[in-house]
Amino acid sequence: MDRGYLLHEGKAKRIYTLEDTEEGEDFSRDHLLVEFKDSISAFDGEKIEEISKKGVLNNKISCSIFSYLEAKNIPTHFIKTISSREMLVKRVDIIPLEVVIRNVVTGSLTRRLGFSEGTYLKEPVVELYYKDDELGDPLINEFHIKNLEIATEKEIEVITKMALQINELLVPYFDQKDLILVDYKVEFGKDGDDNILLADEISPDSCRLWDKETLKILDKDRYRKDMGQIIESYEEVWQRISGGE
Amino acid sequence: MDRGYLLHEGKAKRIYTLEDTEEGEDFSRDHLLVEFKDSISAFDGEKIEEISKKGVLNNKISCSIFSYLEAKNIPTHFIKTISSREMLVKRVDIIPLEVVIRNVVTGSLTRRLGFSEGTYLKEPVVELYYKDDELGDPLINEFHIKNLEIATEKEIEVITKMALQINELLVPYFDQKDLILVDYKVEFGKDGDDNILLADEISPDSCRLWDKETLKILDKDRYRKDMGQIIESYEEVWQRISGGE
Repeated sequence: MDRGYLLHEGKAKRIYTLEDTEEGEDFSRDHLLVEFKDSISAFDGEKIEEISKKGVLNNKISCSIFSYLEAKNIPTHFIKTISSREMLVKRVDIIPLEVVIRNVVTGSLTRRLGFSEGTYLKEPVVELYYKDDELGDPLINEFHIKNLEIATEKEIEVITKMALQINELLVPYFDQKDLILVDYKVEFGKDGDDNILLADEISPDSCRLWDKETLKILDKDRYRKDMGQIIESYEEVWQRISGGE
Repeated sequence: MDRGYLLHEGKAKRIYTLEDTEEGEDFSRDHLLVEFKDSISAFDGEKIEEISKKGVLNNKISCSIFSYLEAKNIPTHFIKTISSREMLVKRVDIIPLEVVIRNVVTGSLTRRLGFSEGTYLKEPVVELYYKDDELGDPLINEFHIKNLEIATEKEIEVITKMALQINELLVPYFDQKDLILVDYKVEFGKDGDDNILLADEISPDSCRLWDKETLKILDKDRYRKDMGQIIESYEEVWQRISGGE
């Protein structure tokens, strides 16, 4: 499967078209290739580094999680793994919302609720942030979203409901792997028929994952906080997800 | 009607019980006296001043607006004006939410949406802030509120719906007085039977009000921004509300 042109390059991924798809193949302009890079960044790109193999691990982890969610009837953009760094996906228009789902209090939530770090929430919190670097990705609500015209009231409902369903599946999924899914960011997109699909990635770049026994941090916070052992932690997450495959 | 003891003193109001109510009167421990002070403050109380007559004007303005809303079937805590600075109200437990309703973009909303100052919103924005000085009154959503246990999902719905109904009434109310109701903060409380009532005050301390023709600011922003003519502006609002009474 040949890549077409580079549609978009983000901090951790490149998105390619499939313009050069060979005749007879099912994959067309309704599909895209996602390539996971080794770049890691934090604080709105102020801190950037290359971590060898990170892209390979995030591709494996994301593909596994998307496959699991698809099998549980969550519509996602995922079609199949193409190579060690590449995933074939349905083409969607990304809705510019960072949908954050939280199970345990940490980060900005300690300052928003006044709860201490590590508190288990009585019920999950879903937060919608407006994806806009210049504005600093502010927290917004349904009234802001309607005025920004980035989603309708109905779409916000669907997204919120899907976020909670995904969480209902992923908390026990990670728990079985002795990992606590503390919080994570997901994104949604709309396909040509206006179906809302889970998109982007789900990996230690976008999740906070702690070891269930030791509470050891096994995600990008190790990079943000200069804790070292970044790739070893991502590898550990992959080992647990794949069952040492 | 005699005051009981001082129940609470805020930056702009004192709340008294009516413990010493005389026999035969209808007003009991289900009622409170609100006294409007002349203190004006901004930036979480960092800036404080006394403005002679402000309390009298805010009492008159609040009483007029609450009466108007009551007549339009909005349940409020207001019962009647007692004196130039005092209002008799139903006793409620205040829900610790600052409910902000916005019709025109200004202040923090410019930075949240990226819209320019003075933009008319296509539809009103309702924002819920957690009343907590230590946390800096953060913006929150229904998931935060449920975890904080300060209101149920049903109560959040009722509050949001009431906020929009109040806005539907107050925008034309002020428009008829040649004032633009840019944005404002209201608070709600629960009475002994768990009814949700509009409470607190509605005055130039809690509203942004601009002259319809000149866009002259006629509210507490004159104090925040050191623009002078504060009491003259509050007086102007009262003149327009009372029809020069």
